[in-house]
Amino acid sequence: MNILIIGGAGVVGQKLATSLAARGTLRGQEISRITLADVVAPTVIEAPFPVDTVKCDITDPASMAATIAADTDVIYLLAAIVSGQAEAEFDLGWNINMHGTINVLERARALGTKPVVVFSSSVAVYGGDTPDPITDFSSLNPQTSYGAQKAIGEMMVTDYSRKGFIDGRAFRLPTISVRPGKPNAAASSFMSSIFREPLNGVAANCPVDDSFPHYYLSPRKCVENLIIGAEIPAEDFGPNRAVQLPGRMWTIRQCIDAMTAVAGPEPAKLITWNDDPVIRQIVKGWRFDLRPEKALRLGMSADDSFEDNIRYYIEDDRP
Amino acid sequence: MNILIIGGAGVVGQKLATSLAARGTLRGQEISRITLADVVAPTVIEAPFPVDTVKCDITDPASMAATIAADTDVIYLLAAIVSGQAEAEFDLGWNINMHGTINVLERARALGTKPVVVFSSSVAVYGGDTPDPITDFSSLNPQTSYGAQKAIGEMMVTDYSRKGFIDGRAFRLPTISVRPGKPNAAASSFMSSIFREPLNGVAANCPVDDSFPHYYLSPRKCVENLIIGAEIPAEDFGPNRAVQLPGRMWTIRQCIDAMTAVAGPEPAKLITWNDDPVIRQIVKGWRFDLRPEKALRLGMSADDSFEDNIRYYIEDDRP
Repeated sequence: MNILIIGGAGVVGQKLATSLAARGTLRGQEISRITLADVVAPTVIEAPFPVDTVKCDITDPASMAATIAADTDVIYLLAAIVSGQAEAEFDLGWNINMHGTINVLERARALGTKPVVVFSSSVAVYGGDTPDPITDFSSLNPQTSYGAQKAIGEMMVTDYSRKGFIDGRAFRLPTISVRPGKPNAAASSFMSSIFREPLNGVAANCPVDDSFPHYYLSPRKCVENLIIGAEIPAEDFGPNRAVQLPGRMWTIRQCIDAMTAVAGPEPAKLITWNDDPVIRQIVKGWRFDLRPEKALRLGMSADDSFEDNIRYYIEDDRP
Repeated sequence: MNILIIGGAGVVGQKLATSLAARGTLRGQEISRITLADVVAPTVIEAPFPVDTVKCDITDPASMAATIAADTDVIYLLAAIVSGQAEAEFDLGWNINMHGTINVLERARALGTKPVVVFSSSVAVYGGDTPDPITDFSSLNPQTSYGAQKAIGEMMVTDYSRKGFIDGRAFRLPTISVRPGKPNAAASSFMSSIFREPLNGVAANCPVDDSFPHYYLSPRKCVENLIIGAEIPAEDFGPNRAVQLPGRMWTIRQCIDAMTAVAGPEPAKLITWNDDPVIRQIVKGWRFDLRPEKALRLGMSADDSFEDNIRYYIEDDRP
């Protein structure tokens, strides 16, 4: 079982690799190797099998041919230009998020071995005038370029799978929180930083008011679901390989209260409240009333409470 | 008002040009020129203004730069590899239907004038386990490569419009019947030929049984709607530029009875009934219970009866 994680330098990629290393198996087979590939050289992780790190360019078919070895069994495609940056840099977003995905799918197809391809999509595929609640059969109505690019990736994963070129699976990630590390260009970045920074004793700004509702999943649960996602029998997907991952809807206020319940009253005092209209415009178009029935049927699950999300951050990531 | 029709050699392209020539105006302005572009040289049409015909390669950005003149006001993008061929020739389908669409959108964007782009999508975007009835907010769940490519084109048209690069509109065409001319590689080709050929005194085969229900629009009404489609004020589309065109659901039996009502009992006797599992497999995945409320609200309309479809063929097209 040779596993490649494209986007292996990222938070989810690193945690996924660490989790796979601890398990030692995937799809009932011993893992023989994990390759972490990214646009920057990924940090190597501890494992009882070889772990390679590769710098690659997803927009270059030759780089993808070199990165996706002929004996790759499972490819996780987690690399992306995130929402805020794809909105600011139109061509870069399409180039990485759509053309990059095409390059990965084409290389996977060229292997001729029908590898498993796990594609990370996003709740950003929803939006516009699609009525709530969002079910597995709601129209994708993205209101950002990032969302459109992810919706397109899903369509390609399903079509390449239907044709038998790959065994693809696409999962729409809720906003991942509490995400460790530094703020990034994702419009959702604050939905981690207003917990992470205060838990580390540092101030952080909330650019929307505390009634803002959103749909969350912890990194720990996200990785659990992505591993399940690679193991689901292909036939269980039915005629569409794209599935909304389970998450839970909470308001910013509920999340802050959960942080206070776990870590006491001090962290919440470090949150500042300066409105940011650009961020607000993007995130208010996102959906939060989601009913991920297919994922639940496939054995995936959400966090039980945002207290858990806070606890996981403290246990897994707090410096 | 300089209009370009890409796919101008096709049935809809030719009829659209003829109809525009008869009107003389579009979007409240006098038409100064129509250019018919296609992979083969289109037939020129009669008009009170210059009509150019151009051979072009939609997969070549340079060809698109040469074809889409700087002063183009409205671009109709009707060119496509049809469903049956896109299923049989995977790379060709993606190359023309997706990469070709990208080339047109990129050239339209490069003009810097925000041209109107009318993109022809298809009911093939629906399918799979999406529940009936299909509304404006049903999930796109294509079960053919053609359907996936059209769904992707829609997403791009909406995103390019949202960013202000074009004023795009995407319309999902029902199966166009009675389509004049010769059978083509569309899986839906028989849904015209079993009426057209018998009305011309020639035998034609029906590859499915006569209870098969489908969703139809006549060429005459299709062109009417595509002209309305270019004229709808941009703001009336709301947050999604893709709209299901109105059509009507009839079974093959109902359509044959309509032909008999208009043209007498002889044509129906020329239909043969040899099952074709490949065609059946494709078309049985298509949807027929459609509720195109947005298009009706935008002023578009369907045929009143399939008798009309038969009459329009006799009036407009029968040799």
